[in-house]
Amino acid sequence: MDGAVFTVGSTLPDAPGRSGTITTPHGQIRTPAFIPVGTKATVKAVLPESIVQLGGQAVLSNAYHLYLQPGADIVEEAGGLGAFMNWRGPTFTDSGGFQVLSLGAGFKKTLAMDAVGTQADDVIAPGKDRLAHVDDDGVTFKSHLDGSKHRFTPEVSMRIQHQLGADIIFAFDELTTLMNSREYQEDSLRRTQAWAERCLAEHQRLSAERADKPRQALYGVVQGAQHEDLRRQAARGLAGLDFDGYGVGGAIEKENLGTIVRWVTDELPDDRPRHLLGIGEPEDLFEGVEAGCDTFDCVTPTRVARSSRIYTADGRHNLMVAASRRDFGPIEEGCDCYTCTHYTKAYLHHLFKANEYNAATLCSIHNERFFIRLVDSMRDAIEAGDFAALKQEWLGRYLSTSA
Amino acid sequence: MDGAVFTVGSTLPDAPGRSGTITTPHGQIRTPAFIPVGTKATVKAVLPESIVQLGGQAVLSNAYHLYLQPGADIVEEAGGLGAFMNWRGPTFTDSGGFQVLSLGAGFKKTLAMDAVGTQADDVIAPGKDRLAHVDDDGVTFKSHLDGSKHRFTPEVSMRIQHQLGADIIFAFDELTTLMNSREYQEDSLRRTQAWAERCLAEHQRLSAERADKPRQALYGVVQGAQHEDLRRQAARGLAGLDFDGYGVGGAIEKENLGTIVRWVTDELPDDRPRHLLGIGEPEDLFEGVEAGCDTFDCVTPTRVARSSRIYTADGRHNLMVAASRRDFGPIEEGCDCYTCTHYTKAYLHHLFKANEYNAATLCSIHNERFFIRLVDSMRDAIEAGDFAALKQEWLGRYLSTSA
Repeated sequence: MDGAVFTVGSTLPDAPGRSGTITTPHGQIRTPAFIPVGTKATVKAVLPESIVQLGGQAVLSNAYHLYLQPGADIVEEAGGLGAFMNWRGPTFTDSGGFQVLSLGAGFKKTLAMDAVGTQADDVIAPGKDRLAHVDDDGVTFKSHLDGSKHRFTPEVSMRIQHQLGADIIFAFDELTTLMNSREYQEDSLRRTQAWAERCLAEHQRLSAERADKPRQALYGVVQGAQHEDLRRQAARGLAGLDFDGYGVGGAIEKENLGTIVRWVTDELPDDRPRHLLGIGEPEDLFEGVEAGCDTFDCVTPTRVARSSRIYTADGRHNLMVAASRRDFGPIEEGCDCYTCTHYTKAYLHHLFKANEYNAATLCSIHNERFFIRLVDSMRDAIEAGDFAALKQEWLGRYLSTSA
Repeated sequence: MDGAVFTVGSTLPDAPGRSGTITTPHGQIRTPAFIPVGTKATVKAVLPESIVQLGGQAVLSNAYHLYLQPGADIVEEAGGLGAFMNWRGPTFTDSGGFQVLSLGAGFKKTLAMDAVGTQADDVIAPGKDRLAHVDDDGVTFKSHLDGSKHRFTPEVSMRIQHQLGADIIFAFDELTTLMNSREYQEDSLRRTQAWAERCLAEHQRLSAERADKPRQALYGVVQGAQHEDLRRQAARGLAGLDFDGYGVGGAIEKENLGTIVRWVTDELPDDRPRHLLGIGEPEDLFEGVEAGCDTFDCVTPTRVARSSRIYTADGRHNLMVAASRRDFGPIEEGCDCYTCTHYTKAYLHHLFKANEYNAATLCSIHNERFFIRLVDSMRDAIEAGDFAALKQEWLGRYLSTSA
């Protein structure tokens, strides 16, 4: 019996996109779904009840962050991630693979989608004198909090994620960038495939050992950067293993997102859910849904909200513009979120000027609702048979008015 | 017809304390009541619905702050303070008298209860080259935000407070400190009495002019510092005018709080509500209630919450102590607040370590609930006839365990 069961609902006539339902020990997720991020076991500035109210079906936290602070043992002792953070619905944890190599290595800046050099191999290549060292067994890295040294292996990531106890967890993978050499990408994929097998074995061992705990679903993560053959090879390799679902990770060229995701979903079994990791903007979500991904997470809605920027169907706007000072309308006409139905732009402008906590709270609520409502509308459109029309109409308006 | 109507419920047998009900155009306040402070039209880090849930009956904002940012005209255009901030219950605004002289003059530090010098006259004496200048007509001060020059007179304060539109507003008064000379205190009181008369006249004129707006209640503010004759004289002077209620303001020696407040309430009419401005700690609230004050406001609950300190019946504690790291109990056993019924100390400790917004939110909710529940219990005790027992028992425990 798997930790999560997936059933497909409607499918697109001419693309891999579909609607469906993921069933976890903590409830169902109707897909496609946008999953709010609560990196450190809290969605920044938003209480869990507000997440429920704005339509959030699950929360995704991060194994790397929670391992460093407060420690996976404390989350386990609290009854697991959901109990710890007062979230009763389904939970995800990311494996930490991305973070040990990005935050830990301090190479976040090189993750930009545009290739600006070819030094990437040096940054994460084995044996170099860097903050993060990759070897075939795992990754040694320094904490971004205090510089202390730590080591993640596939087995360590699985043990941490079992302690955290999320319903859906991810295999430990190696992150590469668009700048890595072809040779390095091949070498890395071989490692990620071997790690996936070790994760699955350790996950099965831990699940048997902890049979009293709610079953957790393990997703394998498909890497391969921008290369079609590598993406397909990685997906086929993982498809041959008994994962409950699949993550699509790593660097993806934005302009090729739909194409790259389709290489992957083309190779994956249709009866397993797929999560597109850390993506993205509205246009990326349309591409990801059409290409057959079922769940999505991204910090963008809350991150940009904290700097007074809000999403609307007419593009992204900044509440700090002078015109907002006397604008007594909501952020977005017709939006059903708590913020839009109770507050004016003038009030939010004031809260940001006054540096008040509730500025971040109220804008985060709107932006999260915006993304959730958008992906929900894609689900409805798939089921109603008019996804293509929604995509054309919605994106036409959004992209024509965005800066 | 007054803006607020007060009815006395039960009274203490041996002191001026009483229970009662204040009726405003936006609802009733059962007294004694602790009023959460939302200085800038927002209770810091707490949404209005949470304030309702934790038993908050009204919110007190500040005319000085809202005049500077966003501007009283904007609050008025939004439909008044309550509509602007999404608070449907009763509202108060402080007159700005305290702030133009403390924040504006930058002499906040000299407001300590202990006299450390006798320079206070220099700080606020007329004509000196200071940030704030008091003359018989009003106060000229510089904004603490940008140093720009402004002038408040009784009439200006009334016009601002009418624009803000709170249910209960305060007369513009001059703040003195325990360090001012006797001579200066006498001079200042004469000014505050004259200003009170001007406030009342302007309030009546504006109320007639704006008869379509909900009626606002105007409270006169009793100054007089630590001097019995001056406090009594000030209270008698204001009692002779037709105020809807009274504020007790200015510097009060903490160890003499009950005595000083009783001088004042002794002179005031029993059928009008009394608000003790900006006080205080639990022991001060017992003194204030016993001495006959009906409503109280203080920033302490939210201010200390933001630095991880929480109130309990066993005193004030800091959640950052290492012992909280693995403490899976609530902040306070038996507390009915949202935070205590949904979160552990271990989680709150984690949120503070991780610098998360919800740390401030959750601790502010507990601390506000703590103060509201405490004053509510005083009201219940007055009505049940056992206030003295509550005071002795509660304070005995609290003070014996407080640091």
